Amino acid sequence: MEIRNKQDVRDMARGAAFLGVGGGGDPYVGQLMLQQEVLKGRYPRVIKADELDDDARVLSVCGIGSPPVLVEHLLSSRLLSELMDRMEEHLGYSIDALISAEIGGLNSVMTLGVAAQRDLPLIDADGMGRAFPKLELVTFSVYGCPASPVMIMDELGNMAIVQSRDDATAEMMSRAISSSLGAMVYSALYPMTGRQVKDFAVHDTISLCYSIGKCIRESREELDNPFDGLLALLNRPEEGRHCRLLFDGKIVDLVHEIRDAWHFGTITMEANGNPDDVMVVEMQNEYLAARHNGKTVTMVPDLLCILDAETAEPITGERLKYGQRIKVVGLSAAPIMRRPECLAVFGPGGFGYKEEFKPIEELNP
Amino acid sequence: MEIRNKQDVRDMARGAAFLGVGGGGDPYVGQLMLQQEVLKGRYPRVIKADELDDDARVLSVCGIGSPPVLVEHLLSSRLLSELMDRMEEHLGYSIDALISAEIGGLNSVMTLGVAAQRDLPLIDADGMGRAFPKLELVTFSVYGCPASPVMIMDELGNMAIVQSRDDATAEMMSRAISSSLGAMVYSALYPMTGRQVKDFAVHDTISLCYSIGKCIRESREELDNPFDGLLALLNRPEEGRHCRLLFDGKIVDLVHEIRDAWHFGTITMEANGNPDDVMVVEMQNEYLAARHNGKTVTMVPDLLCILDAETAEPITGERLKYGQRIKVVGLSAAPIMRRPECLAVFGPGGFGYKEEFKPIEELNP
Repeated sequence: MEIRNKQDVRDMARGAAFLGVGGGGDPYVGQLMLQQEVLKGRYPRVIKADELDDDARVLSVCGIGSPPVLVEHLLSSRLLSELMDRMEEHLGYSIDALISAEIGGLNSVMTLGVAAQRDLPLIDADGMGRAFPKLELVTFSVYGCPASPVMIMDELGNMAIVQSRDDATAEMMSRAISSSLGAMVYSALYPMTGRQVKDFAVHDTISLCYSIGKCIRESREELDNPFDGLLALLNRPEEGRHCRLLFDGKIVDLVHEIRDAWHFGTITMEANGNPDDVMVVEMQNEYLAARHNGKTVTMVPDLLCILDAETAEPITGERLKYGQRIKVVGLSAAPIMRRPECLAVFGPGGFGYKEEFKPIEELNP
Repeated sequence: MEIRNKQDVRDMARGAAFLGVGGGGDPYVGQLMLQQEVLKGRYPRVIKADELDDDARVLSVCGIGSPPVLVEHLLSSRLLSELMDRMEEHLGYSIDALISAEIGGLNSVMTLGVAAQRDLPLIDADGMGRAFPKLELVTFSVYGCPASPVMIMDELGNMAIVQSRDDATAEMMSRAISSSLGAMVYSALYPMTGRQVKDFAVHDTISLCYSIGKCIRESREELDNPFDGLLALLNRPEEGRHCRLLFDGKIVDLVHEIRDAWHFGTITMEANGNPDDVMVVEMQNEYLAARHNGKTVTMVPDLLCILDAETAEPITGERLKYGQRIKVVGLSAAPIMRRPECLAVFGPGGFGYKEEFKPIEELNP
């Protein structure tokens, strides 16, 4: 994959919105930042994890805050550059490569922008293969790479370094700092080695993300139904990837609730021409579970995306509207995300569900 | 002054409760910590600011959190020692002396304990001559010594370093971190030079604090009315210090409100035998203003203390009770605290009052 022009950047951002599964922060500000780098001729270099030395020094950067604040607040390249400088100074070594902690939403597109800006390779991998709302919900953390030190900066020159006993505490401290500074800050975190990336990351997600965005655009131009192209790309049982078109209809009820700093939501949809055929999607920042006429058809960490029925454009949770014509697509999570130790952290129980995780391909044979 | 036994420690803590003007955190846990050091033969050394070299390296330590959490949560000497070690490491130099940021309440007694533990001199001075509820409300900040870097630690090994653009932001960030860690953490902050201490601190407040505590105890033992001794100590117009016994009565109404993380309160008292003679004290964490039959008799930053009418024991805001027999004493703030640039920060306007500051000696000639 190569990201060399505006269309490539838009494809990447569209893929990130898909993998954002309703949340993850609008990729748009990251898209603008990456586009600026690309238009200057600074193209991000994406490498495979196995190109890394085992002792390579790897770092993540990500935004921490509130998505509605984010979109009112353009990303500053200068800030991200200073964040990297100060983090290298604090760590006492130079960084060899970047990795996105979160492929879905803003963070992957932004990390590509930082990689281009710093002329550092970006590893074709991330820590969750989707979006999650807390910094400890990554495979890195499950397998013992600490988030700390977490360096946090805002655009006014305020800075904090968090060194916590565990990653859940790092999340609470970082979230509190973010709130105190207006709910949008940038962070550098999860310093890792090349070996750790090879062993613990979710691989090939940057290229998957770009392919999804590109496929949606091309299918829209070339096919009668863009979903045919998307399903052909994503449903590859021989590669262990399963994708299902779960529903085709319109939104008939939307309930949003902001509680304990989470965005809870319930989206109810009716099939076209059949009001008795109903799908309900439950969200907590991201889409977590889908029930078709009461039967569970997808469960976290498997992915759910709600797309415009016509254009297959992914729609984030806060942009859903009553009456909207949509299609719901489910996608299997990467195999590493379904291991017992990972499901213990970000499986159904991690979001308060009592039910066990069942793979989308078993729920929808 | 020398602090060499349990009685000396109790005297110091009693003075700190007086100068805490109703807030500042209960000195009790600091008292226990200081007492432990003293019983081990580690006595705090209190020195005058003019004994410092101009380039001496000075630091403050203080608790940041919620007083009700504090009293359920003993102070750990190990934690304070590690905090000092890590702060010296971060600053890249050794500390020559400590200064209390806040003489009133917990922080002065605790800083004496840390000074004894580390065998560092404690300067006979502080940053406010009383208690205030935010870390930027100190003369150091008014005169341009930044609070940052602020190092924050809790007992579980979580740590943060805050480097803010201004001290009000340092306060917001530190407060947020404290809340995220359970509302009781310890901090090292306001690195200063000896010259800055000489120029910007409120001087001789440690010895004043100790004298007040000692005077209350001795007057209680030796005089019919302990307030006679207290007034004789504190009302010294020739030294620019003015003290008034403002009221003698009982509490007839108490209103407490926790709003925006502040403790607001209104305390109404009636004179003994005369229900038409009323004093109202307004508090916002600390006692801020006293109105006698509608006429203002003391205004922040001048000090107000509510004491047990019999024993002259200072009573903090959360321990006031309906029907309690009390006396109200007002004390002039140190001259530096009444300068225009200081009043602009922690004068009446700093707490939302529209009225101008008037000195207690003018309000009560």
